[in-house]
Amino acid sequence: MIKVAILGYGNIGRAAEEAVKAAPDMELTGIYHHDDCLSCIAGNIDVMIVCTPTREVQKFATVLAARGICTVDSFDIHGQIWSLREAMDAVCTANKTVSILSAGWDPGTDSMIRALLMAMAPKGITYTNFGPGRSMGHTVAAKAIEGVKNALSMTIPLGTGIHRRMVYIELEEGADFKTVEANLLADDYFAHDETHVIPVDSVDALNNVAHGVNLVRSGVSGATHNQRFEFNMEINNPALTGQVMVSCARAAFRMKARGEYGAKTMIELRPIDLLPGSTEQNIKALV
Amino acid sequence: MIKVAILGYGNIGRAAEEAVKAAPDMELTGIYHHDDCLSCIAGNIDVMIVCTPTREVQKFATVLAARGICTVDSFDIHGQIWSLREAMDAVCTANKTVSILSAGWDPGTDSMIRALLMAMAPKGITYTNFGPGRSMGHTVAAKAIEGVKNALSMTIPLGTGIHRRMVYIELEEGADFKTVEANLLADDYFAHDETHVIPVDSVDALNNVAHGVNLVRSGVSGATHNQRFEFNMEINNPALTGQVMVSCARAAFRMKARGEYGAKTMIELRPIDLLPGSTEQNIKALV
Repeated sequence: MIKVAILGYGNIGRAAEEAVKAAPDMELTGIYHHDDCLSCIAGNIDVMIVCTPTREVQKFATVLAARGICTVDSFDIHGQIWSLREAMDAVCTANKTVSILSAGWDPGTDSMIRALLMAMAPKGITYTNFGPGRSMGHTVAAKAIEGVKNALSMTIPLGTGIHRRMVYIELEEGADFKTVEANLLADDYFAHDETHVIPVDSVDALNNVAHGVNLVRSGVSGATHNQRFEFNMEINNPALTGQVMVSCARAAFRMKARGEYGAKTMIELRPIDLLPGSTEQNIKALV
Repeated sequence: MIKVAILGYGNIGRAAEEAVKAAPDMELTGIYHHDDCLSCIAGNIDVMIVCTPTREVQKFATVLAARGICTVDSFDIHGQIWSLREAMDAVCTANKTVSILSAGWDPGTDSMIRALLMAMAPKGITYTNFGPGRSMGHTVAAKAIEGVKNALSMTIPLGTGIHRRMVYIELEEGADFKTVEANLLADDYFAHDETHVIPVDSVDALNNVAHGVNLVRSGVSGATHNQRFEFNMEINNPALTGQVMVSCARAAFRMKARGEYGAKTMIELRPIDLLPGSTEQNIKALV
């Protein structure tokens, strides 16, 4: 049994807990809050699933990897993944362990599908269309506008990678909607997309963790144009993220056992390493 | 530059040639007909793309691997892949080389997607719906019926993995359609599916290498049901198969360079190994 623990117990941590409990080859050895003293973490851990806020991932993953514990995170700032990988790779290699970075659905499984489609049709354009679903980054930006008590920013796909933002806001007592709307539309998070601001009595009444993706590629295989590919999903967002992290925990454990130390993103993983069961069972069932 | 050669020059061999020529990191060092004497093959080959009929793959791949040459094939008899892998793995390990087996779209890239969807939602059902497109196996079976001059069997997806067979036949002079139809419908290849037999003046007039897949999974991530996934493609069949084999040739070359000897199916490959360019370039572009 792979000994798995969870650090951080928000939406993703809870979903990861469910996925560990459903895995036939894992046991849950602990759940830690991210304000726990890291030095208190017991030694009985093969893989720590790091479910802290993204900006705290590196701090915790570095300490854990330095102790030789495998880590999995869902770090999601696309532009900073390479530098995180460089930093974590050095720590993991020095301490003979494995970190899997940005394990979720985007970055994550979508990245694997984008890579696979590039291998199938090397020239062409891929569009990743997100939603409908909540954008965490845009929701945080909307909440930071003066006069906003609570907010929810929905991402609506318009095709070819273009998105509409539907921003539902609960105003603070006495705040002026027109002023709040103007400030929000001027914010850099919203200024570049079609954005609609809608006042509501209760943001909580809109709460729903559904999300989706429509990933489309038209490209060229060899000399043959018009090869068309499409991947769609409609999912519970934290449930999928937690599950993908747990599947990656299995891959991290196996890679460490084989001496393949270092930090990896999901496009660097073998799909079979994500699955329980033997090589023979999986090849016979899936290939 | 990776030195790539092609063995077999039918539809797939020609498509592989186009894909090698389009690859920025490969040079084509030879094209061999599968009745060429294997001892005549020049030594200047890193990877041989084996485009012979499926039943001849093992014979040729074994001889090539014994010489330390990497091979890629698109062996497509699902029930025999594991035993082929066992046999080729022994030859490859002994001769410090790499064989990638069943590199096409099914088995192949579909297998990778099925594995990925299992990692995203471990419980549930996946349906792989093929077509519309030609089935080689059913076409060969139809041609073997007495009184059939030429035939084409189309696979039509009806959903949930159920398929209709549309069999177009050109009769031999004096053959009786009703007799041919009855014999065909009684053949084990057709007896278990909804099958329609249609007489035509020219099978050649129907020639089209288009094919497609609709791969659907509904499953459970952690404890959350009703996670829904779908992969669709509409493609030129030999062009995609040839391209996938060429992308796998790159992976074989890299795995051999890292000392990862043996025979592998596509679910055992890292997606990034299929792509030209550096790890940094691909992570920045795709993750």
